[in-house]
Amino acid sequence: MIMHKVIYDTDPGVDDAMALVFQALHPQIELLGVTSVFGNSTIETTTRNALYLAQRFAPGVPVARGAAAPLRRAAPAPVDWIHGSDGLGNTGLRSADQSALDARSAHRFIIDTVRAHPHQVSLVAVGPLTNLALALGEDPEIASLVKQVVVMGGAFGTDGVNGNVSPAAEANILGDPDAADIVFGAPWSVAIVGLDVTERIVMTTDYLAKLRDDAGDVGRFVWDVSRFYEAFHLSSAGLGGIYVHDSSAVAYLLAPHLYVTRTGPVRVLTEGIAVGHTIQKLMTFPAPAPDWDGRPPCEVCVEADAAQILDLYARTLCGKV
Amino acid sequence: MIMHKVIYDTDPGVDDAMALVFQALHPQIELLGVTSVFGNSTIETTTRNALYLAQRFAPGVPVARGAAAPLRRAAPAPVDWIHGSDGLGNTGLRSADQSALDARSAHRFIIDTVRAHPHQVSLVAVGPLTNLALALGEDPEIASLVKQVVVMGGAFGTDGVNGNVSPAAEANILGDPDAADIVFGAPWSVAIVGLDVTERIVMTTDYLAKLRDDAGDVGRFVWDVSRFYEAFHLSSAGLGGIYVHDSSAVAYLLAPHLYVTRTGPVRVLTEGIAVGHTIQKLMTFPAPAPDWDGRPPCEVCVEADAAQILDLYARTLCGKV
Repeated sequence: MIMHKVIYDTDPGVDDAMALVFQALHPQIELLGVTSVFGNSTIETTTRNALYLAQRFAPGVPVARGAAAPLRRAAPAPVDWIHGSDGLGNTGLRSADQSALDARSAHRFIIDTVRAHPHQVSLVAVGPLTNLALALGEDPEIASLVKQVVVMGGAFGTDGVNGNVSPAAEANILGDPDAADIVFGAPWSVAIVGLDVTERIVMTTDYLAKLRDDAGDVGRFVWDVSRFYEAFHLSSAGLGGIYVHDSSAVAYLLAPHLYVTRTGPVRVLTEGIAVGHTIQKLMTFPAPAPDWDGRPPCEVCVEADAAQILDLYARTLCGKV
Repeated sequence: MIMHKVIYDTDPGVDDAMALVFQALHPQIELLGVTSVFGNSTIETTTRNALYLAQRFAPGVPVARGAAAPLRRAAPAPVDWIHGSDGLGNTGLRSADQSALDARSAHRFIIDTVRAHPHQVSLVAVGPLTNLALALGEDPEIASLVKQVVVMGGAFGTDGVNGNVSPAAEANILGDPDAADIVFGAPWSVAIVGLDVTERIVMTTDYLAKLRDDAGDVGRFVWDVSRFYEAFHLSSAGLGGIYVHDSSAVAYLLAPHLYVTRTGPVRVLTEGIAVGHTIQKLMTFPAPAPDWDGRPPCEVCVEADAAQILDLYARTLCGKV
């Protein structure tokens, strides 16, 4: 059985929390650590939530506090209307023990952990990519020592979807476009599950209710934490359920065969009206493209087997994998 | 029977020539004029070719010479390896009578013609959009007097295709991104057939051979003029045939029901590594987008009935519509 040693870089965030319990409960994932980053809320809130989630669902897994702001810009405002003012759907859940925080910064934690387990660590990154870019900046050699990077972020235009914060940009990448361009350009193996794909994977209200009823404490948690988030989806998209963003990156790690990918280098626009936009050069592109050429290929998901991914998540939470 | 009064704005160009004979022969199109623009070749070459094509296939239709360069940049180099150094597949075809050129510039011709036929003129634009932008600049009111604008240009990411000159930009839009952003933002009805769609409509060698054998003089012309162009498609894309770019815009004019479109304002990036990239804000996008909002919606094609479009072209050239 393949075991995945994972550092989970996250800005919890409701779907971040749901992806954490997915990882904590899946028998093929060994969580080496959780690193927080600004994004869905402030670094204070996302770190507090990461601590709470680790202590409740992954006890003993270290949590390291990450970047409070992008590399070269001001931090975006928390999206309280999506994730609640507490980042966990206004559930009031919070950690009792803030002292458990790792003494290291997130990017230092990443470097140390990758070096302690060369070629074994997968980075699952579902927030702005600032921590990963800082780690690369401080210790570029880790690129060759990381097993793989799986990112939830960006959007690649399938179904006409190129963003959610702007018509051209998805929230995680827009959160730190400079960092994302660094991460996608580093010589490590990167797979990207973009918004255009995650918006095609939907947990309906019925699906979530079944988890609530069948998956014990964690199922109840997922239900509780997703009420506010589901109301946002209903009001903004008329959706009777929620998009599966961050957990789709976890599913890719576990079951890449459930996705169809395209291969080619990816650039992130760092200025202009489309800042945060992601553009892949396909391997079939017939001409030189100096701004893409020389960068390593990324795997960009363009299709996903939503039914199988939803089934994998439910079986994991119900202890049936 | 609906009759379309058309001004054909073009940079011939092999597929431009093939789209001209399509228009000249279709009984529902009345060509009011042909306007040339730089693009596939220099303005001298494209104008000479436009004159040749009009005199041979649409005698009496005026030809007006258009822009030699984009609004705010240098003219791109002719793509001789695609269209031949003469712009017509190195066939050596050329007009004997250069004196037939209309005395007006293309954009002035457009203004005068639109004003002479208010609400009746369709602009079919298959090159850089400089002439249209110049016409809008000189006489903004024509926007409300044009029936519709059908553009072959841009790319919207279906099938991962966002460009042909760069991974982010299609040739016509990159030819003058400033003009394209003006044209897509003007208060007239714009439909866009992008590269991602036109690359799914292919005239195979067999299809072209059948035209040669069945469509008389014009079929022979299409065959001759497409030999060099077809060789480019084989070498660059491994294609046993040619993409149907410009004629797809004509097909949209005649038979929009053969296309599926998405509605929403379109911006063109005018700087950075993705200059020339086109991004539509979908009507379903759930948030404000100041750089898109307030601009009129465009119809962007995302699917096409290739078989029916190819059939329409062949029947037109064979006189069977």
